[in-house]
Amino acid sequence: MQTEIDANLLAEGLVRVQREVDEVFDAFLPVPQDSRARLVEAMRYAAIGGGKRVRPLLLVSTAELFGVDRDAALRAACAVEAIHVYSLIHDDLPCMDDDDLRRGKPTVHKEFDEATAVLAGDSLHALAFEILSEQATSTDPFIRSELIATLGSASGMNGMAGGQMMDMMSEEEDYDLHTITRLQQLKTGALLAASVEMGAILGRVPPEGRVHLRNYARDIGLAFQIADDLLDYEGDEEKAGKALRKDEEQGKATFVSLMGVDKAREQARALVEQAIGHLASHGKDADMLRAVARYIVERDR
Amino acid sequence: MQTEIDANLLAEGLVRVQREVDEVFDAFLPVPQDSRARLVEAMRYAAIGGGKRVRPLLLVSTAELFGVDRDAALRAACAVEAIHVYSLIHDDLPCMDDDDLRRGKPTVHKEFDEATAVLAGDSLHALAFEILSEQATSTDPFIRSELIATLGSASGMNGMAGGQMMDMMSEEEDYDLHTITRLQQLKTGALLAASVEMGAILGRVPPEGRVHLRNYARDIGLAFQIADDLLDYEGDEEKAGKALRKDEEQGKATFVSLMGVDKAREQARALVEQAIGHLASHGKDADMLRAVARYIVERDR
Repeated sequence: MQTEIDANLLAEGLVRVQREVDEVFDAFLPVPQDSRARLVEAMRYAAIGGGKRVRPLLLVSTAELFGVDRDAALRAACAVEAIHVYSLIHDDLPCMDDDDLRRGKPTVHKEFDEATAVLAGDSLHALAFEILSEQATSTDPFIRSELIATLGSASGMNGMAGGQMMDMMSEEEDYDLHTITRLQQLKTGALLAASVEMGAILGRVPPEGRVHLRNYARDIGLAFQIADDLLDYEGDEEKAGKALRKDEEQGKATFVSLMGVDKAREQARALVEQAIGHLASHGKDADMLRAVARYIVERDR
Repeated sequence: MQTEIDANLLAEGLVRVQREVDEVFDAFLPVPQDSRARLVEAMRYAAIGGGKRVRPLLLVSTAELFGVDRDAALRAACAVEAIHVYSLIHDDLPCMDDDDLRRGKPTVHKEFDEATAVLAGDSLHALAFEILSEQATSTDPFIRSELIATLGSASGMNGMAGGQMMDMMSEEEDYDLHTITRLQQLKTGALLAASVEMGAILGRVPPEGRVHLRNYARDIGLAFQIADDLLDYEGDEEKAGKALRKDEEQGKATFVSLMGVDKAREQARALVEQAIGHLASHGKDADMLRAVARYIVERDR
C-alpha cells in the first residue's frame, strides 16, 4: 500500500516537473534568426523533451519543504539540469565515451556534428550560470551567489568533471571499492547533492540545518550509481535508451564488478533506507523525497 | 615621445598582470593526489605562463579608474581569462579548428589527449564561476551576482559560443561585412567588453555611467579582430605562436578579405582613435586603457 501511494506521488511529481522544466528551457532558448540557429536547435534537442529530471525533482521537492516559490525553485532546477545535459553531450563525444544513443535518440554529435555538440554543451554550461544570475529573478543576491558557488563547485574539477576524469582513467587503472566510491561521489553524487543543497539554500536553511539533507543526498547519490551499474549490467537497452554493458567491455571496475550483483543490489536498498532515515524529522511534506529515494533503485532506465 | 611613454606603461602593465594572473591560477589549481592530477595538469598547462592577458589588463585597468581593490579585480580578471583559455582549448580541438600550436607550444589535445582537452576546458569554464562566487571574496553579493551575469552572458550562446558557431558556419555561408562584424562582436567583442564592464561593476559604476566605457570596449573589440585578421593574413607564425592563414584556406570571409589590407588597417587605426576619444572624460588615470587600445592594433602576436 505504502509503495502504491509512493508510486502515484512520484509519477505525478515527475510528470509535472518534466513539463515545467521543458517550459523553462523553451523560454530560455528561443531560436535566433541567424547562423546560431543550429547551435540553439542542438541545445533544445538535448535539453527539451527527454530525461528523467531526477535532479530538478530533488531540487523543487527540497525547496517545497521550506515553502520556496515554485518559479524560483524551477529556475534553479533548470540550471542544475542544464549542467547535467551539457555533461551528457560532452560525455557522449567520440573522444569521450563515444555513444550514439541517448534518451532513445541519436546523441547530439550524431544528429548534428561534433563541433556543434562541443559548442551546445559549452552553451548549456554557460546557460546554467546565466539562469542563476538573472537580474529579473526574485531571489536575493546573497542567495543567488550561494546557489552559483554550490553549482560551480559541483560541476568543476572538484565535482562532476573531476569524477569524469577519474572515470576515464579507470580503463587503465585498477580501482578498488574505495576509489570507485570517491569517483562516483564526484561524477554523479556532487550534482545530485547540489540539487538538494540548492533547494535548502533557496529555503534560507543555514548550513548547520542542512546536515540531514546532505546525508540524505549522499546516500541516494551512491544508491543511484550502484543502481546505474546494475542497469548497465542487466538492464534492457531499449528501455534505457542508451548502449549498456560498456563498462565491462572497457574493463572498468564498477560496484557490480567489485561487489557482485546480489551484494550491490542489497547495498543500494540499504542506502535508500538509510537515506529515508535521515528525513525522520520531516513529516508527510518529505514524502516526495522518500519516493525519489525509492525510485532511484527501482527505475528501469 | 607619447608613443614611447605608452610603450613603457603598457609593457609594465602587461608584465605585472601576467605575473599576477599566473599567481592566482596557481593558487586555484593545486594538483590533487588522485587520478584527477592529469586533468588539473592540463588546466595548468593551458592557463599558466602564456597568453598576452589583454582581458585581465583591461579589467584591472578599468577597475583602477574607480579605486577598486587590486585583489578583487584580479580575481575577476582571472575568471574572464579562465573563460578565454577554456574557449581556446575547445576551439583548437580536431572537430573545431584543429590546431596543433597555441602560444608557441602544442595545443592541449596534442600535449595530453582530446578527452582531457574537453574536460580541461569544461573545468576552466566552471572555475570561472567558482572564482566569481567564492564565499571568501570581499566583494558584496550584489556585485558578485552582476559580475556573474555579465560573464555568463558574454560567454554563452548570445556571446562567445554563439560567435564561434557563426564562425564555424562561415565556411559554408557567404558572410557580408555586416554579418562578419556581428560575428566578431559576439566571438571576440563580447568577452573584451565584459572585461571592461566587470571592472566598472566592481567600481560600483551604475549602468548609465558605463556608456562611454562600453563604447570604448566596442571599438577596441572590433579593432582587435581586424588586427587579428591582418596578423592572420601577413603575420609571422613563429611570433604568433600558432598557425596562420587558415581563414583563407578554409574560404572564410574576414575583414581583410572583404575590405582589403589597406582599408582594414586604416579602419583598425580609426577605431582605436575613436575608442580613445571615448575616454576624454578621464585624465592620466586612463592612460593604461589608452595604451591597451594602441597595443591592440600594433601587436605582432
